[in-house]
Amino acid sequence: MAINEKIIRITKEAKDASMALSVTGHDVKNKALKAMAQGLKKNAKDIASANKKDLMQAKRTGFSRALIDRLTLNQKRIGAMIKSIEDVINLKDPIGEITRMWKRPNGLIIGKMRVPIGVICIIYESRPNVTCDCAALCIKSGNAVILKGGKEAINTNAALVKMLKQAMVKSGLPASAIGFIDTTDRKAVDIILNQNSHIDLVIPRGGEGLIRAVAKKSTIPVIKHYKGVCHTYVDKDADLKKAAQICFNAKVQRPGVCNAMETLLVDESIASRFLPPMIEMFKKANVEIRGCKRTMQIIKAIKAAKKSDWHEEYLDLILAVKIVNGLDKAIEHITEYGSRHSDAIITQNHKTALEFLKRVDSACVYANASTRFTDGYEFGLGAEIGISTDKIHARGPMALEELTSYKYIILGSGQIRR
Amino acid sequence: MAINEKIIRITKEAKDASMALSVTGHDVKNKALKAMAQGLKKNAKDIASANKKDLMQAKRTGFSRALIDRLTLNQKRIGAMIKSIEDVINLKDPIGEITRMWKRPNGLIIGKMRVPIGVICIIYESRPNVTCDCAALCIKSGNAVILKGGKEAINTNAALVKMLKQAMVKSGLPASAIGFIDTTDRKAVDIILNQNSHIDLVIPRGGEGLIRAVAKKSTIPVIKHYKGVCHTYVDKDADLKKAAQICFNAKVQRPGVCNAMETLLVDESIASRFLPPMIEMFKKANVEIRGCKRTMQIIKAIKAAKKSDWHEEYLDLILAVKIVNGLDKAIEHITEYGSRHSDAIITQNHKTALEFLKRVDSACVYANASTRFTDGYEFGLGAEIGISTDKIHARGPMALEELTSYKYIILGSGQIRR
Repeated sequence: MAINEKIIRITKEAKDASMALSVTGHDVKNKALKAMAQGLKKNAKDIASANKKDLMQAKRTGFSRALIDRLTLNQKRIGAMIKSIEDVINLKDPIGEITRMWKRPNGLIIGKMRVPIGVICIIYESRPNVTCDCAALCIKSGNAVILKGGKEAINTNAALVKMLKQAMVKSGLPASAIGFIDTTDRKAVDIILNQNSHIDLVIPRGGEGLIRAVAKKSTIPVIKHYKGVCHTYVDKDADLKKAAQICFNAKVQRPGVCNAMETLLVDESIASRFLPPMIEMFKKANVEIRGCKRTMQIIKAIKAAKKSDWHEEYLDLILAVKIVNGLDKAIEHITEYGSRHSDAIITQNHKTALEFLKRVDSACVYANASTRFTDGYEFGLGAEIGISTDKIHARGPMALEELTSYKYIILGSGQIRR
Repeated sequence: MAINEKIIRITKEAKDASMALSVTGHDVKNKALKAMAQGLKKNAKDIASANKKDLMQAKRTGFSRALIDRLTLNQKRIGAMIKSIEDVINLKDPIGEITRMWKRPNGLIIGKMRVPIGVICIIYESRPNVTCDCAALCIKSGNAVILKGGKEAINTNAALVKMLKQAMVKSGLPASAIGFIDTTDRKAVDIILNQNSHIDLVIPRGGEGLIRAVAKKSTIPVIKHYKGVCHTYVDKDADLKKAAQICFNAKVQRPGVCNAMETLLVDESIASRFLPPMIEMFKKANVEIRGCKRTMQIIKAIKAAKKSDWHEEYLDLILAVKIVNGLDKAIEHITEYGSRHSDAIITQNHKTALEFLKRVDSACVYANASTRFTDGYEFGLGAEIGISTDKIHARGPMALEELTSYKYIILGSGQIRR
């Protein structure tokens, strides 16, 4: 009961604060962001010691090295968080922009004005940098934010939020615009997802299980990102040297992330030329290959791909390889097994590239580049609050503009409807 | 069980058809729309006789005159449906438009391309014109549509859909892109709302009860429109003659619709001048007035407004009237009691108008015009598939552009991530 009341209070206060923030000017919001960057520098020691508590607990619990790595805040990472806030300061404030304006025959002038969404709730797992990144993006876009991080990072997040709230107050903004759910009680998420009168949008960040659970329970709109089963299709007209570099990068440069390639599709007419050196390259990098029957006829010493492999997001040094009969079959495979995240074609044929770009229904469709670029920063959006594989509201990397809605403003001179 | 299977089949076929439609050119989609307009002309008799069946049933059931009126399709209304489809034909096809394109320092060219959402499901009540309007808007925007009309219009809708499907086939498009749920079984809606792998968006159109039930049960994103508690605030610097005309229009011209005024807010400094003639005008038009205490001091023979009146969407010749102390109090009232649909200020003071436009968080905010203009057609969008009071995806009147999503297309020349 106490948790319930606490969450209702935090979210209601955030809603009230969002009203004030929605009409706060650019300068004041940037002042708060500057105070956040300074706060990170000044409080680096406190934050590091809070982080140590979390790390000790994580080690005691026996967490994996990967999780402990994600949880760790060292000086370099705090430096990156400061840089990230500074980048957001330099972004253009989207709020108040009139994106379109037109005049009706009766003289009414109608405009679409960008406004904040209101209160954004981020539900995330262990990475503490999400706390600062999301707070900075939400405040810059005039939104209040509710932060619900993982219990393994609770001390680190509490130290970060304390600093963030101080930065808000220093700049004359309400501390309650950054709401922090500081409980590790499992019921908290369920209670949050019921506050549809105080929260306007939920963005869960984490594994597929977390996201599906949030989407199922929420009475608030959710922007989802289930998984990234990304494909690269090497067309018969590909520059094979470029193709090999791109495929290698897409799989190996950072295999544990959602924009890494999971399945390589190769046109049959070039398969026997392209695959042997390509797979040799992958093997040298310790990539396990799981091939279709035709791939296994060309390359002997590999595992056979099962049907389930085509659906798999390995997030690891494993790659499924399939030989297909041309563009149509490649698109068919992507449509059937893909997750609509990021898919690429490698071809020097302009017409084929355009066909692929037009017909593949994914958030990001590439010609002749690595799918690893699907990222708000790499796209030039300055930062990223998440990636959407939904088609409603926003798709692909989401940054400031995607944290806005709009309203129609209508300027009249006495018009009445006949 | 049979219904379940049938709905799964219809929605799956619509999903498949949506893939084909998403890459169908402008000309072919317009050809289908022209065939729909012609089909309405040619089959007017069949449609009228199906409508007669529904009307007879409605009369037997003892439906209200208002409902029977909404259900009725006469020659004039069929003519209006034809005109509406012709208007959609003349609208610009939004699909494939590159809304933004930029180059990154590494040479990647990134563009945002408008694409259809996929499959849109419309759940609506008795008005049969919705069937044709929504089908035309969805097909034009490259989306498949699932139509679930009210059971009172089932014969009319079946006749309309038969014609719509014929028009699709004539134009070489899949008839299954227009899915029709022809059952009156109450379970049908629940089954539809579970098809999240085949339906991308649900738009319920109807009373608040229907919309709340859909939003609660749906596993698919829903765009909602609960109600329109629209305000007009007459500022101290208003042109009182204009104000009276606008307020009268907003309340009386068509009181049963969501963009009609429900509450009139008047600044205290002009109340004693403005209200007596204004209320006289309303009374002559049979408008019942429910006033706040201060209003009752000025005008004696009116009812007292209860607290619940400020929340009320009367959809009738009833008006709540409140005297407020200036702009801040007016905005406070709108924020507390409004439904974020359409709200207006009447003032000759430019600064006050801008304050109101900026601070009122509603889908449509007016200065010096009647809220009755909140409508896709009146806004120049050509048509309307609904009005959103949500802040996610789309807000206010929704037409073709609002039925689209986007994808990022990325043109490279071998870029890999470092």
